[in-house]
Amino acid sequence: MIDADYMIHGDYLLTMADGEEPLTDGAAVVKGDKIIDVGNYTELATKYNAKHYIGGGFRLILPGLINTHTHAAMVYFRGIADDMPFRDWLEGYIWPAENRWLSAEFVSDAMELACLEMVRAGITTFCDMYFFEDAAAVIVKEIGMRAVLGRGVLDFPSVSAKTPDEYIESAEEYIKKWNGDELISPSIAPHSPYACGPDTLKKAKKVADKYNAILHTHLSETEWEVNEIGKRYGRSPIDHLENIGVLDNNVLAAHCVWPSDSEMDLLARRKTGVSHCVDSNLKLASGFAPVVSMLDRGVKVCLGTDGAASNNDLDIIAEMGAAARLHKAAAGDPTALNAKQALRMATLSGAEALGLGDKTGSIEKGKQADILIVNMKKPHLLPIYDIFSHIVYSMRSSDVESVMINGEVVQDRGVLVKKSEDEIMDKAIRWNRRIKEETRS
Amino acid sequence: MIDADYMIHGDYLLTMADGEEPLTDGAAVVKGDKIIDVGNYTELATKYNAKHYIGGGFRLILPGLINTHTHAAMVYFRGIADDMPFRDWLEGYIWPAENRWLSAEFVSDAMELACLEMVRAGITTFCDMYFFEDAAAVIVKEIGMRAVLGRGVLDFPSVSAKTPDEYIESAEEYIKKWNGDELISPSIAPHSPYACGPDTLKKAKKVADKYNAILHTHLSETEWEVNEIGKRYGRSPIDHLENIGVLDNNVLAAHCVWPSDSEMDLLARRKTGVSHCVDSNLKLASGFAPVVSMLDRGVKVCLGTDGAASNNDLDIIAEMGAAARLHKAAAGDPTALNAKQALRMATLSGAEALGLGDKTGSIEKGKQADILIVNMKKPHLLPIYDIFSHIVYSMRSSDVESVMINGEVVQDRGVLVKKSEDEIMDKAIRWNRRIKEETRS
Repeated sequence: MIDADYMIHGDYLLTMADGEEPLTDGAAVVKGDKIIDVGNYTELATKYNAKHYIGGGFRLILPGLINTHTHAAMVYFRGIADDMPFRDWLEGYIWPAENRWLSAEFVSDAMELACLEMVRAGITTFCDMYFFEDAAAVIVKEIGMRAVLGRGVLDFPSVSAKTPDEYIESAEEYIKKWNGDELISPSIAPHSPYACGPDTLKKAKKVADKYNAILHTHLSETEWEVNEIGKRYGRSPIDHLENIGVLDNNVLAAHCVWPSDSEMDLLARRKTGVSHCVDSNLKLASGFAPVVSMLDRGVKVCLGTDGAASNNDLDIIAEMGAAARLHKAAAGDPTALNAKQALRMATLSGAEALGLGDKTGSIEKGKQADILIVNMKKPHLLPIYDIFSHIVYSMRSSDVESVMINGEVVQDRGVLVKKSEDEIMDKAIRWNRRIKEETRS
Repeated sequence: MIDADYMIHGDYLLTMADGEEPLTDGAAVVKGDKIIDVGNYTELATKYNAKHYIGGGFRLILPGLINTHTHAAMVYFRGIADDMPFRDWLEGYIWPAENRWLSAEFVSDAMELACLEMVRAGITTFCDMYFFEDAAAVIVKEIGMRAVLGRGVLDFPSVSAKTPDEYIESAEEYIKKWNGDELISPSIAPHSPYACGPDTLKKAKKVADKYNAILHTHLSETEWEVNEIGKRYGRSPIDHLENIGVLDNNVLAAHCVWPSDSEMDLLARRKTGVSHCVDSNLKLASGFAPVVSMLDRGVKVCLGTDGAASNNDLDIIAEMGAAARLHKAAAGDPTALNAKQALRMATLSGAEALGLGDKTGSIEKGKQADILIVNMKKPHLLPIYDIFSHIVYSMRSSDVESVMINGEVVQDRGVLVKKSEDEIMDKAIRWNRRIKEETRS
């Protein structure tokens, strides 16, 4: 018998490794932070002597979900401004609120709430773009999540820096500090081609390349952006990034709602990751991203929630269902974006787009143990005929029972392990009161 | 002090009566099956002596949600056939499965699971179209839900009748039997203008009129239907119903994805209820119903889930969020279908479309007590700035804590009161096994 730490067992186990079918009565064996075996439970039980057995009957075992576009600390602005045009929302509400409230303390406290929300929803890795990411990183590690945390860069001053060079320099310092961390991948996040000029974007790319980091940016989100970048540079946004030498396989481009055909081919050729944020695009009326066409061309499309001030939640299970449904109607084809493809976007494709395809995104021998246990004995999850359709069209984030990240149980049967949920929520309630009182006066 | 049965209290109470603002620290007082007062909790507490106090801090009080289009017993076929064209799904999988499995016993057992799922999700009233509705009605009453149950009518034979006249006669008998029941409104449900000829539709309308019942039908769901009805009758489907004298204010038309401008005006003029089933329309690629345009023209649009074999759940909270998001992008206007409008569609508009506007759909003095208590102390529901946006864009069905229908607590802090959830789920598991085994062999 081989010693191990965890035997994780379920009626179904989906490895999400390409070409592999769902295992019934499946199990994953974890030792330290790694998956050391995957297969039939009965066989593995005769081979391994695991300290802990988790999962069981009516349980579904899945790779942890990957949220590839967030502004996690914006959970504290959830619902502060809704049902309004994108630029009114951004310039009239969000940027002013950020200028008033943002601090390391705000971001730390808000990040706790965001991590709690994401772990509850089965997200084990997320890719963030915001400010005070150094403070954020401390919290993410305390909770025990995996994240690509991008230091925001703008051409104009904000609470976090005054000049483009100051943003870039502090981003480089931050990346140097966190590079090599087992859970945190530091990254640089120039906001967009409309909030960052070509010089800033090129400098950011240089930093990303130097440290083998992700460059995370918003790209081709709205028709306004396409027109604006056209006016400024005579090109559409993706083409513009290509032209200045920034479009690459270490770029994570959020949204891509308005790519032309040739821009989609560019995204595929450059192996750029595209974070599709379906609920945010719908709610802000940004449009329908041509996801089916991008996937057909081989673009690395994955899923993101965007910030909770635009969506208004951090729930990749909901995004999976929304994307799989929407793109059938948008393509006029009920066989488009099937359940299995949608689940891949939420798992392995997300990991690949973040440069973490060798570490997470699937349940495979040698990978880090980022694993979910879902309880399927629920009224809305019975009966079961097809496990993929079940996950994408019926499962809800509230069905996620336990969450393992990097070999550690971060949520145990519905309860966060390392921090008090009540304390996290009470902090949110106190901030809520402060922000509301000042807004009122 | 006036005696009462329940004082239902929350930080927020939304009456959803037109023109009324959300109450903070609000309460509803219930005596017998009726709401006898609504207002500020502190004031009501000095006036009423209630046997039971329910709700409390961090609670939101809402009218029960209304699901205006279901085939509830189809929960037992949830996920049996997905990611395929509508007519393959209907004719290749659903109708054959129904012909093999449908019986009074199947419908009773499946209806239990459907009611459990709906109560959990805060649905207090639903409008069903299926077979063996007599057996279904018994279960719905046992659970304690309010429902409009429509006896299905087809032009071709099925397990439930052989000829159109046999369907119509048995529908009339069923309606006679249940008419006047306090929870069940019996109705007649000719499937669609493609599965029922003009004679059948006219006979069904006569029965509906005779008993003051709802005529529930599918209408203008797919582009195929528009073409098919055009070929057969030289008109589009809604126009066809008008032409044969069936379109009226006691008609509940599910889907209406493909109405022309003049057909939308017809729907408004005839005060026909339209059940918008956004998730089903997306998943089956039926198209984008012109909901914003219908609302602008004064059409009575409400929300439905459709059956769980097409959607794949019975969750009006999810439909509300999906509709409010989708129609912004479809209209290219982020202010379209705002959160308050979406919530009205899920409550009072639903009641009105079912002819139950004087009974349910809002929390008003004199109405039946159909009331939800939602727990808002959840990571994804903090902080709170705008209660409408919160409900539509952040709340999930798993946040519904307690459910009162007709003055009775049907779900008490997450637990169904009158039947065993485990027994309901175990029955579903046994049927699942039988259906899977036979399908395999």
